[in-house]
Amino acid sequence: MSTICAISTPAGVGGIAVARVSGPQAIETVDRLWRGKTLASCESHTAHLGHIIDPDRSGESLDQAVATIFRSPNSFTGEDVVEVSVHGSRFVQAELIRLLCRNGARMAEPGEFTRRAFAAGKLDLAQAEAVADVIAANSRAALRIANRQMRGAFSQRLAALRQQLTDLSALLELELDFSEEDVEFASRDHLRELARQILAEIERLRSSFAAGTAIKDGIPVAIAGPTNAGKSSLLNALLNDDRAIVSDIHGTTRDTVEDTLTIGDHLFRIIDTAGIRDTSDTVELAGIQRSRQAIARAAVIIAVIDATTEPRATYRTTPGSGKPHPAPSSDLITEIRSIAPDTPLIIARNKTDLLANNEKTTLRRLGDSSGDNPSNGKQGGGNHDGGNHGNTSTGLTILGISAKTGQGLDALRGILTRAADNLTGTATADAILITNQRHYDALTAATAPLSRLLAALAHTSPLSSPIDLMAMDLREALSHLASITGAITTPDILSTIFARFCIGK
Amino acid sequence: MSTICAISTPAGVGGIAVARVSGPQAIETVDRLWRGKTLASCESHTAHLGHIIDPDRSGESLDQAVATIFRSPNSFTGEDVVEVSVHGSRFVQAELIRLLCRNGARMAEPGEFTRRAFAAGKLDLAQAEAVADVIAANSRAALRIANRQMRGAFSQRLAALRQQLTDLSALLELELDFSEEDVEFASRDHLRELARQILAEIERLRSSFAAGTAIKDGIPVAIAGPTNAGKSSLLNALLNDDRAIVSDIHGTTRDTVEDTLTIGDHLFRIIDTAGIRDTSDTVELAGIQRSRQAIARAAVIIAVIDATTEPRATYRTTPGSGKPHPAPSSDLITEIRSIAPDTPLIIARNKTDLLANNEKTTLRRLGDSSGDNPSNGKQGGGNHDGGNHGNTSTGLTILGISAKTGQGLDALRGILTRAADNLTGTATADAILITNQRHYDALTAATAPLSRLLAALAHTSPLSSPIDLMAMDLREALSHLASITGAITTPDILSTIFARFCIGK
Repeated sequence: MSTICAISTPAGVGGIAVARVSGPQAIETVDRLWRGKTLASCESHTAHLGHIIDPDRSGESLDQAVATIFRSPNSFTGEDVVEVSVHGSRFVQAELIRLLCRNGARMAEPGEFTRRAFAAGKLDLAQAEAVADVIAANSRAALRIANRQMRGAFSQRLAALRQQLTDLSALLELELDFSEEDVEFASRDHLRELARQILAEIERLRSSFAAGTAIKDGIPVAIAGPTNAGKSSLLNALLNDDRAIVSDIHGTTRDTVEDTLTIGDHLFRIIDTAGIRDTSDTVELAGIQRSRQAIARAAVIIAVIDATTEPRATYRTTPGSGKPHPAPSSDLITEIRSIAPDTPLIIARNKTDLLANNEKTTLRRLGDSSGDNPSNGKQGGGNHDGGNHGNTSTGLTILGISAKTGQGLDALRGILTRAADNLTGTATADAILITNQRHYDALTAATAPLSRLLAALAHTSPLSSPIDLMAMDLREALSHLASITGAITTPDILSTIFARFCIGK
Repeated sequence: MSTICAISTPAGVGGIAVARVSGPQAIETVDRLWRGKTLASCESHTAHLGHIIDPDRSGESLDQAVATIFRSPNSFTGEDVVEVSVHGSRFVQAELIRLLCRNGARMAEPGEFTRRAFAAGKLDLAQAEAVADVIAANSRAALRIANRQMRGAFSQRLAALRQQLTDLSALLELELDFSEEDVEFASRDHLRELARQILAEIERLRSSFAAGTAIKDGIPVAIAGPTNAGKSSLLNALLNDDRAIVSDIHGTTRDTVEDTLTIGDHLFRIIDTAGIRDTSDTVELAGIQRSRQAIARAAVIIAVIDATTEPRATYRTTPGSGKPHPAPSSDLITEIRSIAPDTPLIIARNKTDLLANNEKTTLRRLGDSSGDNPSNGKQGGGNHDGGNHGNTSTGLTILGISAKTGQGLDALRGILTRAADNLTGTATADAILITNQRHYDALTAATAPLSRLLAALAHTSPLSSPIDLMAMDLREALSHLASITGAITTPDILSTIFARFCIGK
């Protein structure tokens, strides 16, 4: 096994930087560059001050350094590990890696330290993947899911599922052994019920993928409405609160009409979707098509309306009348509802600061999606949109805001947070959410053989499908589940997974 | 004394990030957030695996972490220090600092850790400033100077100077005590010689500032010549070799016609200075004015000439003839020499790949500035330029290159390296170079009173200047020198110095 090294701290200049060296030669390699106490004689988990020197330059000191020893197996990788902390100069960092590579180590590939931890059995594959998710986490909610996965909650759930499949398999084998004697050891109903439960759990995990992805990448919120309604002002007013994190992440998004925003535990992706209206202009139509897509994909929609031009807005028709009120925004709402009938919709009546006091509209809920007020939810159902989709049952919230004075923004943040909590189910601390496409694909692949098995079990006795075919389906489902934690895997799969890691982890 | 904390690793996302906590409450503060072995009971220089938890969220784990303890006085600051290594997620880093600040620490100001090391007497001020220089170092030469200063070489030189000044002061006092008895205890000549030596050493240190700055910020190299001569190709060809470091630093320079390049131990700042010629166009003249300044400031000048249009170039006149050869580039050379008569000049005859073999020009030296070939140097003196400055004695090197094929580039790199070595005197490992404006200013300030003293001592006996005025000059010079290492300082000066540090150092 080779000894690997990399700078594990973020790229760039800083007070200190840490190089990690792992492998059977780790301590020996650093000792060759070390002026100070011989590290080979030092105990695990001890830190030592010394100098990194260049043996090829008559021992010239590169930098003062602290070396911390972690001896196998009590290290992240399970191998001998030395962490060398130097000054965070770009040159010193590059030079340290060069010296390590000339003295027994080689540059680590992306994710190679974690891959070695996996190889040593310190982590299973799903846990190893969670390490990358922890590092990428941009919100508390995302970190929470990643932490849970890293600590093995998802792996345990999968282990339970695999145990159930194995039990099912054993019962089937039993049936196979005694099938010629026509003794039905395992109740057919019991087998079917077991398979159904397993499939239902897999479907539950699969269906959490949308929410998991939203938490990981940011919950998509579409802002609709005419430009002079104050959409940009609203966005800016919301962003002010968390500008630091916003500007950090902004550079990573390529689309200029998209921005991210952290409220409480959640990261939101705010998508500007201006200008939906009837037109025959082909360029405008293409733009509108994009807006429709954004609205269709959004987890929450905010329709921003200018309260000064619609002082007494009503966004619903009287049931039966079939005629929308003539408010200029009613077309917009109708349009949104035709695209996304079930998505929580917030109508933000902006510029309330310009209204006379008695005209100000406060928060009104019609069909609250938070579920903590079921009567409200019922009341709002069926009468809150433009008339074309009178039978939708999702939440509509109307509130007055002023992007200028900040009035109503806390309420808006609260609504967004509640919508996010509902979406992600983070209220229940034990929720396991899938955030990884590979896991989703493996779960999806496992459903096909299980569905076949269930169909076969549904037939009346004697079993119409040969039991060995059913056993094969079970094995197939098992192997897909096993691939998630890496109980079954290939070097190719591993390379693909760890190539996505950053260097030094 | 408060307890401070900061992320000490570079800003951004990485495998791990390290927060540093320093102060009397450092260990206690981390223990409040720590699930694992109680750190207060752990020995100095030991590392411990545990979890950072949030006491306000029922102990929810933020992240797995390694805490390393450094107990006072055996730490960088001299105080109790805990280094907490977590996953390098942006969110985890921000959250860790928030938790530390809620539990007994406060955010460190820039450079505050180093300032505390200074306060604890771990480093003097010049050494503390060198810490920032080590972090900013972009080349081996710059790092070497910073390391030397950090280890106290400059401080020792200053201490020696101050001792000499103190000795001089004592001798003067002696003279003062016995002046009425007209006994000249200290020989006037001896005093003068002593003062002269001190002043000479200060001047030597001062004069190293230009080279020191060049090493620190990059050695300025001006490229002159018409655009179609292949200047850009040459720059690109040179850059290829070190693209990684180049692109790293590129973003930090604002001027698009400037780029940095590392060759060997040195960082070069390559400045493009196209198009010097006679013109009456005012805009062009402004541009030419900038080119002239760049040429005047350059430590090395490369004139790139198209060898295909000047196949038999000669860049000198026959002494006495006074008439330059009619090569198109002779005006350029004349112009360069009128601006910078003493700067090493390299004439790079580009596009040699397009020449017939027998026309190719190899390296020719006329007045080698490296000094390792004195006969060549002599030979070249006085006859290498366009005729207007026939008595300059600096080096002129002519070589054929091909930016396209790379021919001659190694030779060019060698010439640049040698010029840099000469400039910086890094061949002598003990050279002390001043790289800090504050030090330069303090040394400059010390020269005035010393010059006054020297003038006073030059007068014949009896001393025409009152001895107490001379003693005052001595004290003034001493205090300027003392300000460099911080033996004399003020909180304002300290704040100014450390405000330039990065956070976390």
